[in-house]
Amino acid sequence: MIHVLKIQCPDERGIIYRVTKVLYEAGLNVIEQNEFVANEENRFFLRTAFDGNPDNQALLENLRTTLHHEAIVTLRPMTPRRIAILVTREEHCLGDLLLRHHDHELPADITCVIANRPEPGQLTKKFNIPFLHIPHQNKDHATHDREVCQALEPFKPEFVILAKYMRILGQEFISQYPHRIINIHHSSLPAFVGARPYHQAYQRGVKIIGATAHIVSEELDAGPIIAQDTFSVRHSHGVHDLIRAGRNIEKIVLARALRLALEDRIFVHKNRTIIFD
Amino acid sequence: MIHVLKIQCPDERGIIYRVTKVLYEAGLNVIEQNEFVANEENRFFLRTAFDGNPDNQALLENLRTTLHHEAIVTLRPMTPRRIAILVTREEHCLGDLLLRHHDHELPADITCVIANRPEPGQLTKKFNIPFLHIPHQNKDHATHDREVCQALEPFKPEFVILAKYMRILGQEFISQYPHRIINIHHSSLPAFVGARPYHQAYQRGVKIIGATAHIVSEELDAGPIIAQDTFSVRHSHGVHDLIRAGRNIEKIVLARALRLALEDRIFVHKNRTIIFD
Amino acid sequence: MIHVLKIQCPDERGIIYRVTKVLYEAGLNVIEQNEFVANEENRFFLRTAFDGNPDNQALLENLRTTLHHEAIVTLRPMTPRRIAILVTREEHCLGDLLLRHHDHELPADITCVIANRPEPGQLTKKFNIPFLHIPHQNKDHATHDREVCQALEPFKPEFVILAKYMRILGQEFISQYPHRIINIHHSSLPAFVGARPYHQAYQRGVKIIGATAHIVSEELDAGPIIAQDTFSVRHSHGVHDLIRAGRNIEKIVLARALRLALEDRIFVHKNRTIIFD
Amino acid sequence: MIHVLKIQCPDERGIIYRVTKVLYEAGLNVIEQNEFVANEENRFFLRTAFDGNPDNQALLENLRTTLHHEAIVTLRPMTPRRIAILVTREEHCLGDLLLRHHDHELPADITCVIANRPEPGQLTKKFNIPFLHIPHQNKDHATHDREVCQALEPFKPEFVILAKYMRILGQEFISQYPHRIINIHHSSLPAFVGARPYHQAYQRGVKIIGATAHIVSEELDAGPIIAQDTFSVRHSHGVHDLIRAGRNIEKIVLARALRLALEDRIFVHKNRTIIFD
Repeated sequence: MIHVLKIQCPDERGIIYRVTKVLYEAGLNVIEQNEFVANEENRFFLRTAFDGNPDNQALLENLRTTLHHEAIVTLRPMTPRRIAILVTREEHCLGDLLLRHHDHELPADITCVIANRPEPGQLTKKFNIPFLHIPHQNKDHATHDREVCQALEPFKPEFVILAKYMRILGQEFISQYPHRIINIHHSSLPAFVGARPYHQAYQRGVKIIGATAHIVSEELDAGPIIAQDTFSVRHSHGVHDLIRAGRNIEKIVLARALRLALEDRIFVHKNRTIIFD
Repeated sequence: MIHVLKIQCPDERGIIYRVTKVLYEAGLNVIEQNEFVANEENRFFLRTAFDGNPDNQALLENLRTTLHHEAIVTLRPMTPRRIAILVTREEHCLGDLLLRHHDHELPADITCVIANRPEPGQLTKKFNIPFLHIPHQNKDHATHDREVCQALEPFKPEFVILAKYMRILGQEFISQYPHRIINIHHSSLPAFVGARPYHQAYQRGVKIIGATAHIVSEELDAGPIIAQDTFSVRHSHGVHDLIRAGRNIEKIVLARALRLALEDRIFVHKNRTIIFD
Repeated sequence: MIHVLKIQCPDERGIIYRVTKVLYEAGLNVIEQNEFVANEENRFFLRTAFDGNPDNQALLENLRTTLHHEAIVTLRPMTPRRIAILVTREEHCLGDLLLRHHDHELPADITCVIANRPEPGQLTKKFNIPFLHIPHQNKDHATHDREVCQALEPFKPEFVILAKYMRILGQEFISQYPHRIINIHHSSLPAFVGARPYHQAYQRGVKIIGATAHIVSEELDAGPIIAQDTFSVRHSHGVHDLIRAGRNIEKIVLARALRLALEDRIFVHKNRTIIFD
Repeated sequence: MIHVLKIQCPDERGIIYRVTKVLYEAGLNVIEQNEFVANEENRFFLRTAFDGNPDNQALLENLRTTLHHEAIVTLRPMTPRRIAILVTREEHCLGDLLLRHHDHELPADITCVIANRPEPGQLTKKFNIPFLHIPHQNKDHATHDREVCQALEPFKPEFVILAKYMRILGQEFISQYPHRIINIHHSSLPAFVGARPYHQAYQRGVKIIGATAHIVSEELDAGPIIAQDTFSVRHSHGVHDLIRAGRNIEKIVLARALRLALEDRIFVHKNRTIIFD
């Protein structure tokens, strides 16, 4: 079975040598390896995919012995991950993920879709995925957050995907899923933070629009960026044309970011991502 | 000889009919025509390139009679335009323009290059273009602006190109060349306004960097955008890699914007550009 | 009601004047107009969208009187068009079109989906679209073509979309839908014509892959191109990564081409398309 | 001093471990390392940049002892490389390289420019680079090749750059510089091999044009691809617009490929390149 090992630690001489020694002596066969040193920050990142059936406990023990005591080490078998999708009303990202799931393109189980509006239920049910409608009307923000959080609990999602969820998650919710909530923002961040970015873009008269998938952090639209893409537009594109064109890149950028997360290809360090693709 | 006619006015029924009637009756041969109606703003834009030798005075008279009294009408023969280039120290955009000029790719005469640093003189002189070094040290901002403005005067430039001119022009300077100063900004505006955008981009951990050519207006980096382009970057790109990659798109975006200006393809309305390319 | 008028004819002086005169005198309000003259080929193209309820018969009569006798003139109200989708086994393009249809993003009615394999039936039926499985085994090519053609007939599709239909249509079929069959080819034509383009691309070691939507003509993969897009790839992309990345651009390029067709934005002249977008 | 070590060999378990052991025991500090295994072809590639002053002879000896006997190992200090540029008449790529050289952006010495036409001499001399005009008229192909080859000899170039050199080099010439001749082809290969690709592209009515930098091999335009880029075009782009737009990507793609070569970032295996950037 294929496993993915990830290591992040202060850089030192000989880390790769020491890590590969442990893997070699455990008889494991490396099939993909990437490393990166952020020289300015003296930070080392390694992702190794190997084939074999290691004694995970012993392997981690041996790695920790040889590595810096602050090293962050994870080891996971490459099996489908459990995810949940939050959505409001727009269905293009949701539909795209449901289709990719139906096509067996995502190494994930979509455990449920939760929406604060009822509309996405019809589409979700076509694909036999549990759908929960949790309205936000007449509730304060924290209450609604808590309801969604509690509804998610039994599904035990590893990642929560905000596929055009037009509400801002509170700190309490975010802290339940550290670095495990992925949002698609419909602009090339940091341009047009916040609401109605296509309207902002139209007013500014830009010739490029974009989409950004990022990890959700406390500050709105300021979390670590996973993937971005852009699209050229012209004066003849009205706001609705921008929105239509934007949908195409939103769904592709979100799907790319999700794949990177599901395959354990993302490291986060100081609000930047290191991505081995 | 080819002429370019540009009309901008409130939209009304039958404008194209009335304008083409005037051209038809003047015996002119339209070789390229573009029009656009900004429906929300009820604004009409027309660019017509025609061949022939019209009586310009009479033609404009006939057009004004048939058009809305607020119509903005310009008529110009398609001849090389006089331009001036302002620069500080970086030479990639300057060099690119000098090369295109040398290759007869720009319908322009580069009348002079003015810099607040001495370095670009060597390169400029290789191409036999007048170079003026106007240092800014020990001068207040307005004084330096005025010196540059006065130095430009005898060259009578129609367009002033800021090819990595790292100073902010004052309102007095800008008002001398309304809609005729083109700047290249090294980010995909409105992201990273102001100084050191590549450093800002690196800190933010973006996966896309960009460049923006825009018309200079009073508010810094907020004038009408002519052209933009972007480039994908990865975690392994340090600030210097971003700067190097950015140079490629800066010079291409600036050259594209300049060509559009030289060929009279740009309209400005409410801080947005309409571009017929 | 909005109508679209399209004119293609030899270029002459004053065409726009004459056409807009007819529209003006009919009291019609032009809301979008584009024209293009292919100077080398002396060919004129015009697309006008106008609001109003014209006497279509009279309007066409008046236009034909004023235009060259070889002019090709069409006039259509902007109403949803009937389309049919042919597919083999891969479902990403089909699913994308079904989703856009579900989202009311396409000005079209999907009248049916026909496949030579049974698999796409399950997905199609989720969206309540008639599905026909017409197997090709043990039939000669012409027979299968004829069966599909006959099956399409009662649905009266204006456009037939080949959304990864992995069979080559014969001339007889094509002639039933002149310029009305749109195919998505999984390469940036003319590179990698024919079968297994991603395998060809991998072998050639390209750094860019692409997708092409084109109108089907007699010669394989050689019909007029409507839309193309490309995607950067790296040495680490194996054939399956190319295929996965390619799917994203295939579905977007096909959807773009279909929208252009549905909105009457495509002209064909000598195997090239003129597209007013 | 920074050195670059490159290894290419059949894949085996533990290679990275063994190589990093050698480097570690030699007291060298790895600052950038990339590896790749082409699993289908069981081929291993490693590029390591390290700081330090090794005993190169001993280091190579130790590596060869630990590696497969077919391993291809190179070790080079990161110093500027000697290059020569061949050109015919078009100057945009030549000029771009001269400018980057002037800007100290290329880790290279341009030792000479050789052209079969006299025109590029004027531009080259502005930058104080030796220029040789070697006309091809009234010479058979092999003779002209031989003259150019002999003229190059005293300059001892490590890489020969074909910056729009519109002649086909013979096998004898190519064999003098194995994998060390880089060509820019003005299309997105394998589309439009051979002469006048922009004319071919116009005739085919493509919506995307491209440029390809590749290593020159015996078969015309079929050598390993280093870099490619594309650009969207429209029906209104005539052949000359395609050529003008193409120039921008040609010069950028060539410069990118040259940088990759100069920094020892390219491996070649079976007509494909592995590029660590």
